[in-house]
Formats: sequence, structure tokens, C-alpha cells
Amino acid sequence: MTMTQQSTFKPGKGIGQPVGVAVLGMGTVGTEVVRLMDEYAEEFAARIGGPLELKGIAVSDLEKQRPGVPAELLTDDAMSLVEREDVDIVVEVIGGIDYPRRIVLAALNAGKSVVTANKALVAAHADELAEAADAAQVDLYFEAAVAAAIPVVGMLRRSLAGDQVQRISGIVNGTTNYILDAMTSTGATYDDALAEATRLGYAEADPTADVEGHDAASKAAILASLGFHTRVKFDDVHTEGITKVTADDIEAARKAGYTIKLLAICEKVTNDKGEESVNARVHPTLIPSEHPLASVKESYNAIYVDSEAAGSLMFYGNGAGGAPTASAVLGDLVGAARNKVHGGRAPGDNTYANLPIAEFGEVTSRYHIDMSVADRAGVLAELATKFADSDVSLRTLRQEEEERHSRARLVIVTHSAKESKLAQIVDELSQLDYVHEINSVIRLDG
Amino acid sequence: MTMTQQSTFKPGKGIGQPVGVAVLGMGTVGTEVVRLMDEYAEEFAARIGGPLELKGIAVSDLEKQRPGVPAELLTDDAMSLVEREDVDIVVEVIGGIDYPRRIVLAALNAGKSVVTANKALVAAHADELAEAADAAQVDLYFEAAVAAAIPVVGMLRRSLAGDQVQRISGIVNGTTNYILDAMTSTGATYDDALAEATRLGYAEADPTADVEGHDAASKAAILASLGFHTRVKFDDVHTEGITKVTADDIEAARKAGYTIKLLAICEKVTNDKGEESVNARVHPTLIPSEHPLASVKESYNAIYVDSEAAGSLMFYGNGAGGAPTASAVLGDLVGAARNKVHGGRAPGDNTYANLPIAEFGEVTSRYHIDMSVADRAGVLAELATKFADSDVSLRTLRQEEEERHSRARLVIVTHSAKESKLAQIVDELSQLDYVHEINSVIRLDG
Repeated sequence: MTMTQQSTFKPGKGIGQPVGVAVLGMGTVGTEVVRLMDEYAEEFAARIGGPLELKGIAVSDLEKQRPGVPAELLTDDAMSLVEREDVDIVVEVIGGIDYPRRIVLAALNAGKSVVTANKALVAAHADELAEAADAAQVDLYFEAAVAAAIPVVGMLRRSLAGDQVQRISGIVNGTTNYILDAMTSTGATYDDALAEATRLGYAEADPTADVEGHDAASKAAILASLGFHTRVKFDDVHTEGITKVTADDIEAARKAGYTIKLLAICEKVTNDKGEESVNARVHPTLIPSEHPLASVKESYNAIYVDSEAAGSLMFYGNGAGGAPTASAVLGDLVGAARNKVHGGRAPGDNTYANLPIAEFGEVTSRYHIDMSVADRAGVLAELATKFADSDVSLRTLRQEEEERHSRARLVIVTHSAKESKLAQIVDELSQLDYVHEINSVIRLDG
Repeated sequence: MTMTQQSTFKPGKGIGQPVGVAVLGMGTVGTEVVRLMDEYAEEFAARIGGPLELKGIAVSDLEKQRPGVPAELLTDDAMSLVEREDVDIVVEVIGGIDYPRRIVLAALNAGKSVVTANKALVAAHADELAEAADAAQVDLYFEAAVAAAIPVVGMLRRSLAGDQVQRISGIVNGTTNYILDAMTSTGATYDDALAEATRLGYAEADPTADVEGHDAASKAAILASLGFHTRVKFDDVHTEGITKVTADDIEAARKAGYTIKLLAICEKVTNDKGEESVNARVHPTLIPSEHPLASVKESYNAIYVDSEAAGSLMFYGNGAGGAPTASAVLGDLVGAARNKVHGGRAPGDNTYANLPIAEFGEVTSRYHIDMSVADRAGVLAELATKFADSDVSLRTLRQEEEERHSRARLVIVTHSAKESKLAQIVDELSQLDYVHEINSVIRLDG
């Protein structure tokens, strides 16, 4: 068991001393952070024990009009800004990975605490960033990186520090929840729901990062790392997006009492030898319609945490947007500034558990398999035998009418089984001559 | 604006140093805390940076059998235990007010950090406790005092430290929620539902503190203090319990699309002169059945926080019980221990806003008034005029059949108006000769 690397204590600046802040990026979030820092300057000073002083704002385009922002604060030289002596804390709200990585590392190495909202950066380079923060004995905060103002990072780091997290599952991407919710409530196709989400600003012009599950995967990596005190990176997350979910899948789910959501799921896996590992995954998931996550509408986020002593906890709120993200950034900024004034450090990443990433084939799931089969005697019995032979046991097998006379529609729900076994049987099913088509295979949870 | 009083930095014990812990009280929570400290000793050491060492447990009855607890750790002299030099942190899970107040103050004065689950103590004596903690530069944690493992204290203290909380409303008492939920789902009377709750262990033999709203009032005081950075005490909370809620009220609410919950509500009030004050109150409340709080079942708790930038956040989970409370206590213990090892202090109570308590008459509510009136022409018009004259405007006025021929049942929902005006018109209504009976007056929210 590796102990945390924090060692010497870092004394504070003392009560009343101003805390210098540099903001990197003036998009929606940065603009809101700067505005609220100004509007609530007195409140923040009282909460911190000294005033926040905005020392500079790094932007890519100095020519752009930015009403209300003093021009002398703007610079396009982020690197020089973060190394300035009067800057104590750097707020990174640029986005991207490589460029902010360089700047954030430079800031940490220069002894500045960092607050970032950048999930992709944290999910890709957490080790390197945490090491730099530990070496400099400064804070690295990233509450805004997961579900904006829903304080799940703080909850896992602090509130559940005396508990054993068993499982985390949640809706952590607003765009895909908006699309799936629209498909569920209106019967729209995926393409129509995406078009509507784009028109309303819930989806970006290039929606790939959201609809392919990449954004949710970054968040899953961060949640798994914090919850299980280990390191899970973006590349460790098994990720499937929502682009293949059809209106027909949604309707079939609804009829069976389920709702389809894109879930991020983080859990510990114990293999046959009793060895523990960790799994984080993102995929469309059928959940019972009475499950609290099923009723999360529009672009809201919700995170469900199961832990040994606390039981089930759920956190719900706006998981994206300028103001909610700014709320999380400013909460971190006040925390980092308090530490600058009073001394002490926030709990950093503590990956002592050092769990391996589970082989995805070892992960257990339940499957919902919807297929068209030949409408002849004996098919059901043959299928049931097939499943019995494969170590995947059936929970329900339901036959439905199909329009074409010679076909029957079969909906199978399996019991929990290893992904490897499930993948294998789906493959075998697709090769049977009496299976005309596998309409959908969706995992089931909750 | 008073600044926070934290001044000199308190250096830590250093990595690897053990942290001495005294536990006061071995009821359900204390027993679970001691058990989990032992079971997860390695995990906690890794999270803290040094091992927790249980130095002693104060109990009132030394004779009682306590399987698994080393007898040499037990003492009935809590005062000497908390002052022992090898004790760094005191965990208070006794309950009551006067006795734990003396012990906790002695512990703080002796330089020990304190973790308490005692809502009544914190709601009654927060000022005195916070002063002692500040003077000694130690931590005073009480996450478990509100809604057990739902981390609302940490959320208000830290996660929302960069935001402006506007309103907090929540179900913070499991016993009363169990009773009201049972009445709602089965149509049971209050007495029957209470009897069932007692039988199942959801209500204590003397349920007064729960059903009269006192327990919720302590929590409302704590939430309002943290949310608005001011001091609200138990005595400042306007408190009404659920003992007068009838099966008829519940049924009438259901028909109208509402659910009755015992809510704790904390909000800022601005009077006619523009002066701000704070109100905390606990009372049975009609909320729309589609509101997230309406679907909180059995003894679960949920807290809804509205803040300027984050928008609405909801937190849901087990709000009581040994294990969930132990989870919160242990989270605080790990936090306090981290500070002992690494230096620094958690954010303490910061009451800089120093808001007065609102006159209850100035608080605005909406009322749902259910009454029996004479079934004759003109009554509705007279009532409508009465309301118009009183500055309380009507939102809806609904007439229902009553069994007795000469009577009509009227259900009125008002717009938001001052409590003083609402109380006055209810008083006037009761004196009208054509008003036979006022069946219920319940506030409406959400």
C-alpha cells in the first residue's frame, strides 16, 4: 500500500492578504467566473479570509470585444501569466488537452494552485498533474470536470472518505440525455432528436465527443479513480455511444418497463481467483422506468453512488452550462484561496489501492436481446438449450407478434454473466439459420 | 462585515504519525464507527497519511456486554478521556445537549478536533462551539448532524462556497416522512401510521422530537446558518409538526395533485425597506406531486438547494440509521485526521453575513385552505371580496360536494402573501357566520 506523498506543510499567506488569480480562457465559463468574482468580491473575501485579486486573463484573441473586462488584464501569453509572482491560483477553463496540459504543469511547477474544469485533461494526465501538485505542495481542484455544479468530486474525495464506495452509476452527459429523453418522450428518431438538440444549443456543431460517449468516458475515469482510490484513465474506459439507439429500441424498452439512458458505470470486479480490479464503462443502458435515474429529464445529470455504510446516495442537478460550471470553479477557487491564506492542502489524488483495470470480458452485465426468428415450432426450445449450454442463464424470454407472417420477434433478458460469454452467445445467435436478425443488444442495469 | 477569526497556522503531526481518537458513546452509531475504524484501518491510514488509533471509548454503563470491544478501552469518565494527551480527535455520538456540550467544549479547549453527529447540540450552541474551535485552531465537523450520509454540510461549506445560496428546502426527518408516506400510500390515519412506524423502529417510543418537528428544526437551523453564512439557532426556527395532519388532508391534497411532506425551508427575506433577513421554518407542506421531493419515500431524506449560479441541486439518500450516520462521522474523522497529519483546518462556521432573523409575519407563503361553508348564493362572491380587501390574492377557489346538504366544501389556494396577512384572513374567515368550519390550513410550496 503506497502512502500519499504529501509531506511538508505549506504555511499560508496570513489573514487579509490578497490572493492573486489568473484565469485562462474567456469562453462561456471563463466569462461567468470573471463576472461573479467581481460581483461577489466581498462575499468571497469574507469566506476566504482575504480578497481575491484578478491579475490577468489569458485569451487567444486579444482583438475580440469583451465588454466589462478591463483591457489591461488581457494577455495572449498564458505561460508568462501563470508564472507571474503575484499569481497564487490559476483557473484553467480553456479546454483541449495538450496546450492546457503544458500551461497547467508550468503553473503547478511554479507553485501555483490550479482549478480546472477540463475533464479531458484530468482523465488523460491525472498522474502527471497530481505528481506536480504534490511536488509543489499546492492544490489541484477539478470539481467542475464532472457534472458541473453537482459536487460529486468533493463528495467522493471528502464526504465518503470514511466509507467504501462499491459502485457509481450516473448520467453525466447532458447532450445525450437530452437526445434520449426527446426520443423517449416524443418518439423521435435519433437523427431528429440530435437535430433538435443542436438547434437548441444542447449539442455542439460537431457532436462526436458527446454522442460517441467520449465526454462521459472522461468523467467515468475521474469518478472511478476517486471512488476506488486508484487510477483509471480515459483509455481504460469501455465506451459505446448512443448513435445506434433507434426509436424502435426506445419503444420496445418502454413497453417492457424500461428507459434507455447513457450511463457511466464504475465498479470493482472480482475474478475467479478472488483478485480485485476496477471497471469503468459508458454505454446505452436499459434501466427500470421507476429507477430514480430513469426520471432524469432533458440535459440534467444525476449520479448514484452505492457505498457500504451510507447505502445509496443520489445527486441531481445541472451538469453543464456556463453558470453551473462557474459555480463549481468558484467553489474550488474559494477552497484553494482559503488554503493559500490559512495554510493546509485539500486532499489530493490518493491512488493507494492501485487496482488493475479489469479485462472487459470479466465484467458482468445483463443483456436485453431483441431479435427476429423463424416462426416455427421448436425455435424457443432450441434457443433455451443454446443459452443453457453457454453459461448464460435466461431471465425472461418473450415472444411478440411480428408483421411478417413467417417471423416471430423474441425479446430475451439474461441474468448477469460475463461480457465474454455474452458476446460469444450473441455471435453464435447471429449465425443460427432460424435467427433472421438481431435487432438490438443493450445492457440492462438497476 | 466581520472576517473569519482563523489566524495562525497550526502545523501537522507529520506523515505516518498515528492520530489518537476518543469515541464518546456506544449506541448504534458509536458501535458502527468503532467497528468500521477497525475493519478499514488500512484504508483509512492510506487516506489520512497515518493510522487512526482508538485511545478510549466513553460509555455510561461499564457493566454492559460489548462483544468485540476491548474492555481496557472503555471508561465512564468522558472528561478525562477527552483531555488525554494522546487523544487528537474526539468523536461525540452521545446525544443530548448539556452533558455533551460540556465535554465537547472541554475537548476543544484542550486542543482536540471534534466530530459530532449531535444536531441538537450544534443547533443550540454553535456560536460557543465555533469560538472554542477557532481559539484552539482545531476542527469542528458535524456532517452527520444533518441527514446522516447525505453530504449537505460539506456541500454548503465547500462546494457552494463560490455561489450564492438562495433557498434550501428538504425532507430532513425520516420518521415523519415514513408516517406521511404511509398515510399517502395506504390512506392510514396519523395514529395508525405512527403505530406502524413505532413497530418497525422508524419512530422512537417517545416520538415527540420527530413528530413535533423539533429534530427537523435543529437541522433547518444548521442548514440556514451554513447556506446564508449567518447564525440561525434552534429557537429561531418556526416549527409546526405533523400531528394535526389528517387522512382527509392527505386525500384532499392527492385529489388536487399535491403530496403533503414535512419540509424544512430556509430562505432569505427582504422586507419593504429592502432589508435582508433570514427565515428558517418547519411545517407540513403541500408540494406538487410531480416535484422531486414528493417522490421521496419511506424514511429517506432529500434536500433541494437553489443557488444563483448552480441552479437547483438535489441530494437524496438515507437520512438516518447507524451505518449511514457512521459513514458521515467517519468521513469527518478522516478529514480531521488529515488536517492533524498534514496541517491546515477545514472551513469553520463563517457567519460574516450576520443577518437578523425575519419576523415570521414578514415571511411569505402560499396557503391551501379547506373549509365548510353554507351552501347558499353569494357566499363565493363575499369570500372573494374578503380576500381582495385583505391584500391576499386568490389563485384558485374550488367548490366541492359535501355530504350534508346545506353545506359546501370550499378549497382555496392563495397567491404568495405575508404570513401576518394570511393568519389574519384565516382568523377573519373563522368568524364569518357562513363559514361552518375551517378543516385545514396548510402551506404550499414548490
